[in-house]
Amino acid sequence: MKKYVYLFNEGNKDMRDLLGGKGANLAEMCNMGLPVPLGFTVTTEACKQYYQDNEELNEDIKTEILIALKKLESEVGKKIGDPENPLLLSVRSGSPVSMPGMMDTILNLGLNDQIAKKLSKDEDSIRFIYDSYRRLIMMFADVVKGKDKDKFEKILEKYKEKRNAKTDLDLTAEDMYNIAMESKEAYKEIVGEDFPEEPRTQLLESIKAVFRSWNNKRAKVYREMNNISDALGTAVNVQMMVYGNLSEDSLTGVAFSRNPATGEDVLYGEFLEKAQGEDIVAGVRTPKPVEVLERNAPHIYKELKDISQLLEYHYKDMQDMEFTVEKGKLYMLQTRNGKRTSMANLNIAVGMAGSGLITKEEALLRVSTKDLDNLMHKTFEEKALKEEKPLTKGLPASPGAVSGRIYFTEADIVKNYKDSDTILVREETSPEDIEGMKYAVGLLTVRGGMTSHAAVVARGLGRCCISGCSEITVNAAKKTLTIGDITLTEGDYISLDGSTGNVYEGVLPTTDPKITGNFETLLNWAKDVKKIGVRANADLAKDALVAFNFGAEGIGLCRTEHMFFEENKIFAIRKMILAETEEEKEKALNDLLPIQTKDFEELFKAANGKILTIRYLDPPLHEFLPKKEEDIKKLAGSLNVTIKSLKEKIESLKQFNPMMGLRGSRLDITYPGLAIMQTKAILTAAKNIQSQGIEVKPEIMLPLIGDPNELKYLKNIIEKTAKDVIKSGEVSYKIGTMIEIPRGTILSAEIAKEADFFSFGTNDLTQMTFGFSRDDASSFLNDYYQKGILKFDPFKTIDKEGVGRLIEVSITLAKRANPSIELGVCGEHGGDEESVKFFSKLGLDYVSCSPYRVPIAILSAAKAVLEK
Amino acid sequence: MKKYVYLFNEGNKDMRDLLGGKGANLAEMCNMGLPVPLGFTVTTEACKQYYQDNEELNEDIKTEILIALKKLESEVGKKIGDPENPLLLSVRSGSPVSMPGMMDTILNLGLNDQIAKKLSKDEDSIRFIYDSYRRLIMMFADVVKGKDKDKFEKILEKYKEKRNAKTDLDLTAEDMYNIAMESKEAYKEIVGEDFPEEPRTQLLESIKAVFRSWNNKRAKVYREMNNISDALGTAVNVQMMVYGNLSEDSLTGVAFSRNPATGEDVLYGEFLEKAQGEDIVAGVRTPKPVEVLERNAPHIYKELKDISQLLEYHYKDMQDMEFTVEKGKLYMLQTRNGKRTSMANLNIAVGMAGSGLITKEEALLRVSTKDLDNLMHKTFEEKALKEEKPLTKGLPASPGAVSGRIYFTEADIVKNYKDSDTILVREETSPEDIEGMKYAVGLLTVRGGMTSHAAVVARGLGRCCISGCSEITVNAAKKTLTIGDITLTEGDYISLDGSTGNVYEGVLPTTDPKITGNFETLLNWAKDVKKIGVRANADLAKDALVAFNFGAEGIGLCRTEHMFFEENKIFAIRKMILAETEEEKEKALNDLLPIQTKDFEELFKAANGKILTIRYLDPPLHEFLPKKEEDIKKLAGSLNVTIKSLKEKIESLKQFNPMMGLRGSRLDITYPGLAIMQTKAILTAAKNIQSQGIEVKPEIMLPLIGDPNELKYLKNIIEKTAKDVIKSGEVSYKIGTMIEIPRGTILSAEIAKEADFFSFGTNDLTQMTFGFSRDDASSFLNDYYQKGILKFDPFKTIDKEGVGRLIEVSITLAKRANPSIELGVCGEHGGDEESVKFFSKLGLDYVSCSPYRVPIAILSAAKAVLEK
Repeated sequence: MKKYVYLFNEGNKDMRDLLGGKGANLAEMCNMGLPVPLGFTVTTEACKQYYQDNEELNEDIKTEILIALKKLESEVGKKIGDPENPLLLSVRSGSPVSMPGMMDTILNLGLNDQIAKKLSKDEDSIRFIYDSYRRLIMMFADVVKGKDKDKFEKILEKYKEKRNAKTDLDLTAEDMYNIAMESKEAYKEIVGEDFPEEPRTQLLESIKAVFRSWNNKRAKVYREMNNISDALGTAVNVQMMVYGNLSEDSLTGVAFSRNPATGEDVLYGEFLEKAQGEDIVAGVRTPKPVEVLERNAPHIYKELKDISQLLEYHYKDMQDMEFTVEKGKLYMLQTRNGKRTSMANLNIAVGMAGSGLITKEEALLRVSTKDLDNLMHKTFEEKALKEEKPLTKGLPASPGAVSGRIYFTEADIVKNYKDSDTILVREETSPEDIEGMKYAVGLLTVRGGMTSHAAVVARGLGRCCISGCSEITVNAAKKTLTIGDITLTEGDYISLDGSTGNVYEGVLPTTDPKITGNFETLLNWAKDVKKIGVRANADLAKDALVAFNFGAEGIGLCRTEHMFFEENKIFAIRKMILAETEEEKEKALNDLLPIQTKDFEELFKAANGKILTIRYLDPPLHEFLPKKEEDIKKLAGSLNVTIKSLKEKIESLKQFNPMMGLRGSRLDITYPGLAIMQTKAILTAAKNIQSQGIEVKPEIMLPLIGDPNELKYLKNIIEKTAKDVIKSGEVSYKIGTMIEIPRGTILSAEIAKEADFFSFGTNDLTQMTFGFSRDDASSFLNDYYQKGILKFDPFKTIDKEGVGRLIEVSITLAKRANPSIELGVCGEHGGDEESVKFFSKLGLDYVSCSPYRVPIAILSAAKAVLEK
Repeated sequence: MKKYVYLFNEGNKDMRDLLGGKGANLAEMCNMGLPVPLGFTVTTEACKQYYQDNEELNEDIKTEILIALKKLESEVGKKIGDPENPLLLSVRSGSPVSMPGMMDTILNLGLNDQIAKKLSKDEDSIRFIYDSYRRLIMMFADVVKGKDKDKFEKILEKYKEKRNAKTDLDLTAEDMYNIAMESKEAYKEIVGEDFPEEPRTQLLESIKAVFRSWNNKRAKVYREMNNISDALGTAVNVQMMVYGNLSEDSLTGVAFSRNPATGEDVLYGEFLEKAQGEDIVAGVRTPKPVEVLERNAPHIYKELKDISQLLEYHYKDMQDMEFTVEKGKLYMLQTRNGKRTSMANLNIAVGMAGSGLITKEEALLRVSTKDLDNLMHKTFEEKALKEEKPLTKGLPASPGAVSGRIYFTEADIVKNYKDSDTILVREETSPEDIEGMKYAVGLLTVRGGMTSHAAVVARGLGRCCISGCSEITVNAAKKTLTIGDITLTEGDYISLDGSTGNVYEGVLPTTDPKITGNFETLLNWAKDVKKIGVRANADLAKDALVAFNFGAEGIGLCRTEHMFFEENKIFAIRKMILAETEEEKEKALNDLLPIQTKDFEELFKAANGKILTIRYLDPPLHEFLPKKEEDIKKLAGSLNVTIKSLKEKIESLKQFNPMMGLRGSRLDITYPGLAIMQTKAILTAAKNIQSQGIEVKPEIMLPLIGDPNELKYLKNIIEKTAKDVIKSGEVSYKIGTMIEIPRGTILSAEIAKEADFFSFGTNDLTQMTFGFSRDDASSFLNDYYQKGILKFDPFKTIDKEGVGRLIEVSITLAKRANPSIELGVCGEHGGDEESVKFFSKLGLDYVSCSPYRVPIAILSAAKAVLEK
């Protein structure tokens, strides 16, 4: 036969599934000898049985409850319903997974007219006992009978008005008595029957009501939101009442074994004298910090502190405790692992591992990548976020919390960024905006997804970015943005919360990121554990330095096109693109060569012996050309051609689907001069820096390879060019390819024979495997999420069953054909926890991600090993 | 020991690899007892050995040659170098694969001063013998010694001038003697040594020279162009000379056993009296038709005709023969399978199978799909094509040969097509042009590839189309096109050759397609043999009827969007797209419903019980919207909105990469009203037509599915809608999906569980697997072909190792998950021979292609079975 009821001393903390979290912890504390008000737990199995029996308690369960009650009575020396020495009880829910405030509670069970009268001794006790009684009646009507408690509140209000009372404490004993009696009458009126005076009836009805509350609407919604199974059920904890409001030397409080905001190792909490637990939550009075107890009631403080330390040691985690002092005696009502900020979590985990309470591995598993992400950026103050209503909400494309003046062109950003923080607002972004993004603190776009150009660059730069903010209308000409009936003009302040996607009007106060020594310690532990390498995507020397600072082991992706977006360089590349003759093209490339060489020299210097993976020019060429009338005019002037002919040329370079058009290595194949120039620049720079005594490790990476012949053709050109620049063996370099086209994965055996390394470009691979253009997909992905078609954004977290399958196939084919091949990933997924774990388990050699994602990738890589 | 030399009577026709084509056939004829001048063949193995021995004949080979020569002498009763009865020889190349005119020949071998003198008997014999001698000297200098024969030609010219002679025949015997002697002196001067009088030396040197000619430049280029292995080598045929120019009763000629232009079963050919074989080729005199022989030399004619029939019967194919009559005796110098036109090939194959000479299966293998393709369209007259120089060349996107006046807008086409044939010239095309394409005879575009929208629609309509004609500049405003310095204006005539991509100025004469009864016979045979089904892609009832006429077994793809491109319908769909409110959208859809229903009714009627696979709306919506200012203005007027706001709306629907954006089933998921409308239209139409006693077999096809949840979601909507339109089981229909996204292939098991059928959309699948936008790829694909990176156009012929691999994976997964699933292909590849064979071998149930490709698909499907 199943056992449906456990006395607290029959359970322990590992019986969470059966006793619920609260019940298991109460049992544990009980067995540890801590001062817990005694009681028993009706199990989740009883709850399931209750639902099987059409919401009735069967005889077995009822019998067990009554037997447990008997045992409880004998343990505490009180009897339920005994006017001389009555046992009063609380009935509380407690499911295996915490669902704070979602289910119901009934207190003061066991009171009735006779007992109340018997307990009435003086003014104070009358007020106290009838206050408890009226609360029981109200809760019973509400929770057990499902009636509105409005009417009961009104009775209280009426008396308070009469007495001109601010709080309940200002009411007289007689008032309380009257209120209780009027509540009883109201109960009869509303419920249609008398309030049950029989304590055992009260108890059984209350237990049923708590079981019922498992399926109330807010509990169901909460479970759905938090992905908690409906099948778990809740346990019910029946416990002797203790009263923090019974006397002057009674109080109630909440304490944490460490500071939940910072993680500092001190007892942290607050308490209210002469109050019940719910008063703290309701915020009726301002509680006092727990340190005050040290002066007012040193023995209580000491006992609480000892218990706190004992519990933390016992649970090996920071504890969140509820306690009550009844007539000078401390009772522990609850303990559980406490919620905390990211910073606190990091500090606690590292601290506990440092003191040997947990292992380093446990510390690594306890700190989430979300914690690290939060620690990498400024955040708005919690308080401000609670008070301010967001103007609108977009996609949280790049985290950060920034406030600044809005501008609508990069020119205006450049003009104003020195005077105040600026935010660039754009309908969409083009590479031309990169200048503006360098100087703005944040970016807000109407179109584009989480991995839009804007978002990628923003994350690369560590800039806050909200994209796809479709409720906004931008009028670039008037330099205004409109949301509903609010119109903001150039120079107005807004605030962006990059971790939620919320946009606020005005300036919100922020707290600085605090990357303390513990952050570094944790990362070092992670590095010791992880197997997969972590490199960074960085295009310029200064970005590379940031990445190395964050722990990157090399540069896995240097996008050479980003070198060209600066004012003086973009002109040179535009000249190359627009050249009409071979000679002009050649000349323009010759102009670019020293510029590229210099950039690479700086990168090799910054890399200082680390691997530098350089991708050849990738984007469709039209991306380098101006779009705006004024820019076209300027360029036409510089090139000495007519505006009309320049426009025609620009038009002729436009493509229907540029993502699948002339770009990547296709540029080098149609115009090998490009590959020759870039090869010269890389190897010349490598040679120059090597001659300064600095080690260089160039890896030449060809993008968008889908056929082995593409690679063969270009490898031949690169190797021939190398002979012109360096002597054989003078600088050692590798030639590899991005695998980012589905066909590239299928033909991996043939391609691998020609390649020193593969780097999976998961952004493009995801685009083409899904047939989702990432710049356009935002127009339907929301529908896909809402309709349950996709569970997550495949541009953020790798799609294991589709894209991931292709990568697996590619790895198998490539390793079989070329066992020494180096395999990595350089898409956005390289900075996503789930994805890094997946890549680590596939046995890839490295991931490469934005500099600001490097710590996250390192921690994820460690978790991949530890969770195996 | 290897045998390097075969007497003709030692070989046979199956020894092609060893003896070369010519040698094997000479041996065969010899063994058949036909009058072949005797000789022997030095094998291709000897050629390979010659190259292994650094271009020398080793002793083994030399010895074998001299032994064979001895045997030959005894067989023919003449001796080489014997002035009394000299054996004269020809030395000719002959490789396993025909390489006409690419290698060298030496005639009259064995002549020298002594023999020439001895053979001189009268004027005629002197002229003949010294003419032969001078030719030998010249050929020897040219072929063996590699010297320019210019000087020798000049000697001849000099004498001709002196005599004022038109042809060699006008020269005197003395002249010829002098020319021969001067040629000998010239030989010594140019070569630096005496002409070798020793006949065996002449022979061995000539054999070496022919071996050497295997590697001359034009032979190498020819092999590369025709994909012939360099390793094959050539054989050398040494044969007794016979002279068609020896006497009045000598002649030489070429004959075919059937008419090579039409296939008619008559002896066909021509001859020259008193001439050598090369004179026919050179065209010095106009030859006479072979029928003339019937009168002039009936016994020769009869013998030739008998031999011709014998050879055709023996070889089971139409023969191309060379013959010579020396002093009234017929000699056969060569026979081989003759080249012929497509029409002739079809008629010969069907004719031979009809008479039992070959089997029906052999007939099917002999007729190529290219033959059928040629027979499906008009062609320009050969003569005109030879004389006219093309203005420029584009991609041969859709075959046909048309001439017409050029126009630059569909409006101008519609205005003018009744007065004369018209050709639409466009920078690129949009679906709006379909109206123009319906009335124009051809289409010429500057941009776009072989499978561009223009090309696909053109092929679907059977319209001639040349696309990607990048040398053309179109000035739409001025209504002119420019190629180099030629400018054509609206109304000027041009001609398009859709099978070569050539564009001509003016009107070229054409020949009509002749689809005779044999065509039908052959297709019926093919249908009996093939296993894979052949359906057609047709969007309207009349296209479907064309397809059924060509043999289609059903409609495998009806693109519903094409129904909307007509004037009255496009307005309705534009209203739907541009609707601002749900009500407006709903109303616009309600307007579309009866229009769609009617179209489907016509299609079900046309299908008359055949399967009708209907694809739901597929293209990105912006394709339906006007682009031109005037059209936008008109639409704004009709919709009663401002031009500005309409333009903004159009702009907002534009996508960066529409091919991977909001299109296909994504349209139905974001706006289910569309799927509901199309479901209602299909099932209402099906019900109505079924009630007329006509069987209906609708298959609902959802495009662009990459995840099983997409299909589940839409299937649910469709099935719910069906319940509103038909009673359960009233009309049976299937629901399936296109597999055209790489992810769809990988998740085929999960998708197949929800689908009644898969139709592989190989166009899109090729695009996304390669990452090639077919509208943009023409900008680099030419470079890919030229640089040997791609061997063929993957949009034309399925890429077996990449795209094909994904299809194989998909088939395996799908069949395992759903064994009853129906699997087909509906991309352009369904009409390509190689691709159809591949799909047939994969075990697919059907291919679906353009109506005009149906016969080709049927024949390809039969070949797939026969070639197994």
